[in-house]
Amino acid sequence: MTTLRVWAPNATAAEVVTSAGRVPMRSEDRGWFSVEAPPEAADGYQFSLDGGPPRPDPRSPWQPDGIDRVSRPLDDGAFTWTDATWHGVHLPSSTVYELHVGTFSEAGTFDGVIDHLDHLVELGVDIVELLPVAEFPGRRGWGYDGVQPYAPHHAYGGPAGLARLVDACHNRGLGVVLDVVYNHLGPSGNHLPAFGPYFTDTYRTPWGDAVNVDGAGSDEVRRYLIDNACHWLERYHLDGLRLDAVHAIFDMSALHVLEELAAEVDALSARVGRPLWLIAESDRNDPRVVLPREAGGYGLHAQWSDDLHHAVHTLLTGEQEGYYADYGTVAHLARALQDGWIYGRTWSPARQRHHGKPAAGLPGWRFVVSTQNHDQVGNRALGERLVHLTDVPRAKLAAGLVLLSPFVPMLFQGEEWGASTPFLYFTDHPDPELGEAVRRGRREEFKDFVQPDDVPDPQDEATFRRSCLRWEERLGGEHAELLAWYRRLLALRRHAGLAAGPAGAHRVAFDEAERWLVLERGRHRVVANLGPTPRRVPVGGAGEVVLASGPVELDGGDVLCPPWGLAVLVGP
Amino acid sequence: MTTLRVWAPNATAAEVVTSAGRVPMRSEDRGWFSVEAPPEAADGYQFSLDGGPPRPDPRSPWQPDGIDRVSRPLDDGAFTWTDATWHGVHLPSSTVYELHVGTFSEAGTFDGVIDHLDHLVELGVDIVELLPVAEFPGRRGWGYDGVQPYAPHHAYGGPAGLARLVDACHNRGLGVVLDVVYNHLGPSGNHLPAFGPYFTDTYRTPWGDAVNVDGAGSDEVRRYLIDNACHWLERYHLDGLRLDAVHAIFDMSALHVLEELAAEVDALSARVGRPLWLIAESDRNDPRVVLPREAGGYGLHAQWSDDLHHAVHTLLTGEQEGYYADYGTVAHLARALQDGWIYGRTWSPARQRHHGKPAAGLPGWRFVVSTQNHDQVGNRALGERLVHLTDVPRAKLAAGLVLLSPFVPMLFQGEEWGASTPFLYFTDHPDPELGEAVRRGRREEFKDFVQPDDVPDPQDEATFRRSCLRWEERLGGEHAELLAWYRRLLALRRHAGLAAGPAGAHRVAFDEAERWLVLERGRHRVVANLGPTPRRVPVGGAGEVVLASGPVELDGGDVLCPPWGLAVLVGP
Repeated sequence: MTTLRVWAPNATAAEVVTSAGRVPMRSEDRGWFSVEAPPEAADGYQFSLDGGPPRPDPRSPWQPDGIDRVSRPLDDGAFTWTDATWHGVHLPSSTVYELHVGTFSEAGTFDGVIDHLDHLVELGVDIVELLPVAEFPGRRGWGYDGVQPYAPHHAYGGPAGLARLVDACHNRGLGVVLDVVYNHLGPSGNHLPAFGPYFTDTYRTPWGDAVNVDGAGSDEVRRYLIDNACHWLERYHLDGLRLDAVHAIFDMSALHVLEELAAEVDALSARVGRPLWLIAESDRNDPRVVLPREAGGYGLHAQWSDDLHHAVHTLLTGEQEGYYADYGTVAHLARALQDGWIYGRTWSPARQRHHGKPAAGLPGWRFVVSTQNHDQVGNRALGERLVHLTDVPRAKLAAGLVLLSPFVPMLFQGEEWGASTPFLYFTDHPDPELGEAVRRGRREEFKDFVQPDDVPDPQDEATFRRSCLRWEERLGGEHAELLAWYRRLLALRRHAGLAAGPAGAHRVAFDEAERWLVLERGRHRVVANLGPTPRRVPVGGAGEVVLASGPVELDGGDVLCPPWGLAVLVGP
Repeated sequence: MTTLRVWAPNATAAEVVTSAGRVPMRSEDRGWFSVEAPPEAADGYQFSLDGGPPRPDPRSPWQPDGIDRVSRPLDDGAFTWTDATWHGVHLPSSTVYELHVGTFSEAGTFDGVIDHLDHLVELGVDIVELLPVAEFPGRRGWGYDGVQPYAPHHAYGGPAGLARLVDACHNRGLGVVLDVVYNHLGPSGNHLPAFGPYFTDTYRTPWGDAVNVDGAGSDEVRRYLIDNACHWLERYHLDGLRLDAVHAIFDMSALHVLEELAAEVDALSARVGRPLWLIAESDRNDPRVVLPREAGGYGLHAQWSDDLHHAVHTLLTGEQEGYYADYGTVAHLARALQDGWIYGRTWSPARQRHHGKPAAGLPGWRFVVSTQNHDQVGNRALGERLVHLTDVPRAKLAAGLVLLSPFVPMLFQGEEWGASTPFLYFTDHPDPELGEAVRRGRREEFKDFVQPDDVPDPQDEATFRRSCLRWEERLGGEHAELLAWYRRLLALRRHAGLAAGPAGAHRVAFDEAERWLVLERGRHRVVANLGPTPRRVPVGGAGEVVLASGPVELDGGDVLCPPWGLAVLVGP
């Protein structure tokens, strides 16, 4: 049987609590306590500090009954991996597919995802990115309210379910990346403050106290996060992690926790013999995040760039509210495609300051880009996908821009067939007061855009149900047409050498007044009409149309492009 | 006459107010207002926003009557510089002398400092570092409560006085560095919040709201700071700035304001044709502060390293309270002398976390070191200098360690003769409530060390008076002996090529039990007995004693060193 350990630097005594009663733990160095697990712990245990109430293990690997209940140790022999021949995935040549376990399949579980993996293989993506699966309150949620960062959610199938999913992905040649949240814990069920100085009030995040990674006691908090990353990558054979909102991880110490994390994950990668990818969500437009450590960077491998999304979204929808005020011209899109991000020390009206730093010299694969993702769809009052706001031609155009971009593209579940289902914000807080607060907050947030009564109730199970994909619809009509388009784009990307390229290997030309743009990648030119009327786009010389979203004609050195049309030329 | 400008982004209208009344200002781009100065402005002006009360100019270059009164423009022709042949000072080969204008001389003014410059030249230092001179409340203070960052304090002699001092220094071959405070403004007389978003509550400093260098409106706040640096360097011909507590400047944006500042000061340096030095006070032990920008650093030129001070102070006094708990062994001192700082990702008991990052590869001149400075002396309840806590032999030992170190040494006014005067904490807040709060805070801060009634009252002018140097005492007795020792050390440093060296060009050996340490710098060896009993120190081979703090003997390969003795050997 295993040893149970817990860090509780302010406690004088600690006990492990099982169905058989309490067993005192030994005090060790620097605030740690340990004990040989009593046999009953295999069915569930908690920790009690100084005679206080039992609480789940902060590093609980499994909460079979939810956040506030017992923790369970993992049984190392319980799952037999069959991915021995898996040697990892290569991010720079990959396309990512973001999915939410609860709404992706009918079952809403890890096993449910497995049922649809063949669809992803046929689609042509390379990596599945899971929204956070760490135990969060209730049975339904996006996952960003997690409070047990080491435990795969019980409602999704727990540790065994996650292992089965990763194994199944690897057997189909798909890599798996997991979204992890290191900037805060959820508002309900967070027991960490009872155990130690995990949080600080020196800095503020939009979601509560910041995680303490640079104050007294922060060594162990950093260890907690870094061990967590290694736990997922090693135990569950994951291929990488997507780090949520790293700009809300406040670290003023000499060694940023992201730098330390990246160095340890690189070392783990060498040890396990396959690449392990760290992808940051950062709104700083700061090259330091992905610059190598020897160049003064943190050495994460890639980061999301929302600029491309915003540029495409504003052009295609005409929306200009909030931060969309910073976007809306063809020039914005051109800049995003050329440089990876638009704001590289440029005045941002929405931020009311200059923003970012030039990305010059970063290769394309440092940027993960999308025109739809859980945030951009789900953080709308009504959870509309791009196709709901526009039409099939514009959905095709957006797909072409992101899938033929010189970056790492990412799709969002159902995007590929223009799913009719929205992706709404849903929760399942057991605490009725918190549930009501979330409900009110949501209505308040969108009061300038939507009648409060029209904002779906996040706590209502129907809101979750409405967000579940309807797989049957992909087979017919415009859904099927769109799906075929995505497959063709992904096939072209793969077979024509259009994966993410080195810095400066592509060129963008555009005409603001005429609303066209041409992205040149080697012998390929992607021609886009970003307006509602037919356009003549000069491409200077002939070539062959190898893919087009609608009826396209070549006329001398020009391409005649239908409204919102996209075409790919090769040669001469 | 000049143009007056002010940034007031939230105001609808602005006026300049003089003895002749109010004159409306023109609204310009991005929240600026401007007006041709009316003739009466030469005698004093203020700004009024939206018809509100007149307030001093945030960029006031002169507050002839103190913080809350009128601002005055500078008359460009008022001072005739005579330092045309001055081409700057070379920090790496320099020794710095920190002084406080108010207590350095009998007059307590810039002109008073001039009276004693010949003493500094004879002593052998190269750079005068002035504690902050920006206008602060009242007539007496250390200067860290400044609220008019552009205005030399009126009680010190205002702009003309500062110009005379710098000119006089340059004419004697002395450089001048000014201490500037960019992390907060003083608690009284701060009018900036009325003008714009200069502050943020996203981060907390020990002294109040942090300066807003990364939020909405921060472009102009950064401009305010960077223009301030250039203002001092250019208008007053300064040779550098010492940036107070840069660890309390919170900037999470992609371009740290210190990096932007350093780049602009480097550009100014090229323009004015002389070196301009930026020296950070940082408690992060973070090489990024001084690493070149092309290596991912901010590119400041040097930073204070308090680790050497703490190592020497604990060894010589035996004090172990507070952060001194992290120091106290000969090994600590050896590490500080070898690496520049001790905590380079090392466990710090006082901080309860690992601290810093290795300084490996940084040349010695990146570190400014001292065994006494305004903080370490003045932030004691009774303001004791090292010699007050120990004795002349230990004062000589400390001086030898810092002045023969491979770093840039800094002395604190009066240290060189073991001044009998303390350096106490003193203020002159006109606001009686604030004065009382400061008084109470000081008694509270030291309640575990000193009877509250024994803590000098900061508001009492006598506390300031007690801190003023008594120049006559330096000529006699142990004061004169110590002064001669400092002169010999500085002469040796200068003439024996012992200025700050490249990384790795020196070696340290030590014996913890025997409490000796040998610092080897080329052909020179500095031998230190860090204990109260005579020691035999093995130096492996003969040599010549070129300097010793007391009676030293060579015996074979050993040096016989008196208690707390220091000797310098050269050769063989």
